[in-house]
Amino acid sequence: MFEAGAKYIAPLNIHRSPTRSKPKALDTLIAAIEEGWPQGMRVRAIGVAVPGPLDPVSGVVSFTANIPDWENFPLKDKLEAHFNIPAVIGNDANMAALGEWKYGAGIGHQNLIYITISTGIGSGIISDGRLLLGHRGLAGELGHITVIPEGGPMCGCGKRGHLEAVASGTGIARYVAEQLAKGRISMLKGQPGAREISEAAHQGDALAIEAFHRAGTFLGRSLADALHTFNPSILILGGGVTQSAALFFDAMHTALETSVISPDYTRDLLITCPALGGNAGLQGARCLAETSIPPHQYRKG
Amino acid sequence: MFEAGAKYIAPLNIHRSPTRSKPKALDTLIAAIEEGWPQGMRVRAIGVAVPGPLDPVSGVVSFTANIPDWENFPLKDKLEAHFNIPAVIGNDANMAALGEWKYGAGIGHQNLIYITISTGIGSGIISDGRLLLGHRGLAGELGHITVIPEGGPMCGCGKRGHLEAVASGTGIARYVAEQLAKGRISMLKGQPGAREISEAAHQGDALAIEAFHRAGTFLGRSLADALHTFNPSILILGGGVTQSAALFFDAMHTALETSVISPDYTRDLLITCPALGGNAGLQGARCLAETSIPPHQYRKG
Repeated sequence: MFEAGAKYIAPLNIHRSPTRSKPKALDTLIAAIEEGWPQGMRVRAIGVAVPGPLDPVSGVVSFTANIPDWENFPLKDKLEAHFNIPAVIGNDANMAALGEWKYGAGIGHQNLIYITISTGIGSGIISDGRLLLGHRGLAGELGHITVIPEGGPMCGCGKRGHLEAVASGTGIARYVAEQLAKGRISMLKGQPGAREISEAAHQGDALAIEAFHRAGTFLGRSLADALHTFNPSILILGGGVTQSAALFFDAMHTALETSVISPDYTRDLLITCPALGGNAGLQGARCLAETSIPPHQYRKG
Repeated sequence: MFEAGAKYIAPLNIHRSPTRSKPKALDTLIAAIEEGWPQGMRVRAIGVAVPGPLDPVSGVVSFTANIPDWENFPLKDKLEAHFNIPAVIGNDANMAALGEWKYGAGIGHQNLIYITISTGIGSGIISDGRLLLGHRGLAGELGHITVIPEGGPMCGCGKRGHLEAVASGTGIARYVAEQLAKGRISMLKGQPGAREISEAAHQGDALAIEAFHRAGTFLGRSLADALHTFNPSILILGGGVTQSAALFFDAMHTALETSVISPDYTRDLLITCPALGGNAGLQGARCLAETSIPPHQYRKG
C-alpha cells in the first residue's frame, strides 16, 4: 500500500485517550491523522477502527463506551469533509478480525472467530469468506452474550450477566473484590487489578486461581456456543487476559471440549493467538479501505 | 421446477417415523422417493432435508436424534448410487430457513434468523444473502446455546442447560412435571404435554402460565444474543410452541426488547411467523438442489 505514491493513515488509538466532548475527540483524531500524513505521497483513503458499534455503510458511529458524545456521530462524513478523500470506518474488533484473516493468523481460513479478552471482550467473525456485519453492521458482539441469566454482574453496556461482565479482566477483578469483601482468605487485598490477580495466581493463591478458572470456564462454554453457531475452522484468542495465565486458557479449553455437542466441532479446529498484535485493527481498516472504495474514487482527493 | 420435464422429489418426513436400523431408515426413504416419483417426467435431482447435523459437501450425516444408526452415514452417496441422479442433503432447520428466505416470509431480506420451537428447537441463519453453514456445515445450532450454566435440565443432545432443554415443548413439559412433583397446586396432574399445558394456561392456571412465561423469557434472551451476533432484519418464529400461547410470545418479546444492548438491534427488525408451514424444509431442499447442482449435471440421470 505504500507503493505507487499512496499511503493509508493509521489513526491514534482514540479509545486510549477518552474525552468528554464531541469536537475534542474529532479534533484529536484529525490532528493525529494530519501528524501522520505522509509527505510527498498521495493519500488514497482513510480507514478508521472505532471502539463501538457503527453502521459501516452510512459511516455513522452508534455509540462508544469512552466517547459519550459520539452518539449517532457521522464520523465518515466529518473525515471526508475535512480531508476531501474517501474514508471508511469499522468496529475495532471487526477490523482486528479482518486484519488477522487477511494478513495474520487466519490466512486461508473461510470461517474464523476472533475474540479478544482484556478490560472488555471484543469479537469479529469471518463467515464463509466474508466479514459478518449483519443488516446494520452491528453483528459479531459475542461479548454481550448472556452467560448468567439471573442476577449476573453489570456489563459495560448497562445490561447484566454478559460474557464480558464475567470473563474479561474487569469481570475477574470484580469477582475477586467481591470474594475478598466476603472475607475470603487471599494474598490479595482490597480491589486488585487483573494483572495483580494473575501474579497472585502464579504464586499459587487459591482465590486468584479460582477467579481465572471460573472466567476461563465461562469463556469456554461461550466459545462452544459460538462453535455451534458458526462452525469455524479457526479460533483466534487475543488480549491480555488470555496470555496472563495458562490456567485461564486451560480452563477455557476444557470447558470448550466438554461443552460441544459433537467432537466434529473441535476435530480440525485450530485455536491460536493473533499474529499481528496491536496492529490488527489498523490492518483491518486498511483492508476495508482497499476493498470498500473503488479505485476510481481514490483520485477524488 | 415442474416445467421442462423435471421434478424434485419430496421425501417423507423420516424424523416422524423413527427406526432403529440403518437399512430400514434408508429403505423407507428410498421407498418414499420411489412412491412419489413423477410419471412421464424427467427427474433432475433429489433434495433431502435431514433432521440432524451433516456435511453438505460430502453428503455425510453426522448423527440424528431419531435414527441412531445414521452416524457418519453417507446418505448422498447411497441415494446417488440407488437412483443414479445427483442428490443433495441439508439439515432440516437450515433447509426451512432457506425455503422461507427464497419463497416465504423472508423474501428480500439478506440477514435472517429462522427458529422453530416444538418438541425441540431448530434454527437456520441467512447471513449477508447466504445460508450460514460454517467449515463443515454444522453452523446455525441456536437450540444448543447454553442458557443455564450450572445444573440446567438435560438436552436431547446429552448436554445440560441448552435453550432447547428449557424453552422447547419438551422443556416446558418437564418444568411443569418438576413443579407438580414438588407439590405445586395446578389443574394439571402428573406429566402433562405442552398442548395440555397450553390449554391450562388459556384457562388461567398459574403454573401453566408461569411455565410458558419462563420459557418465553429464556427464548427472548437468547434471541437478543442472536441479534447481537447476527444483527438480522427479520426473525421468523415457527413451531407449535410459538403459536400455542400468546403469553409465550409476549414474554419472549418483552425479554428480547429489554435484553438488547441498543434499540438499534430491534428498531427495524421484523418479527414474523413462517409463510410456508411444514413445507419450508422441502422448499429449501429444492432450492439447495437447484443452486448446488450445475445444470449440465442434471442430465446425468
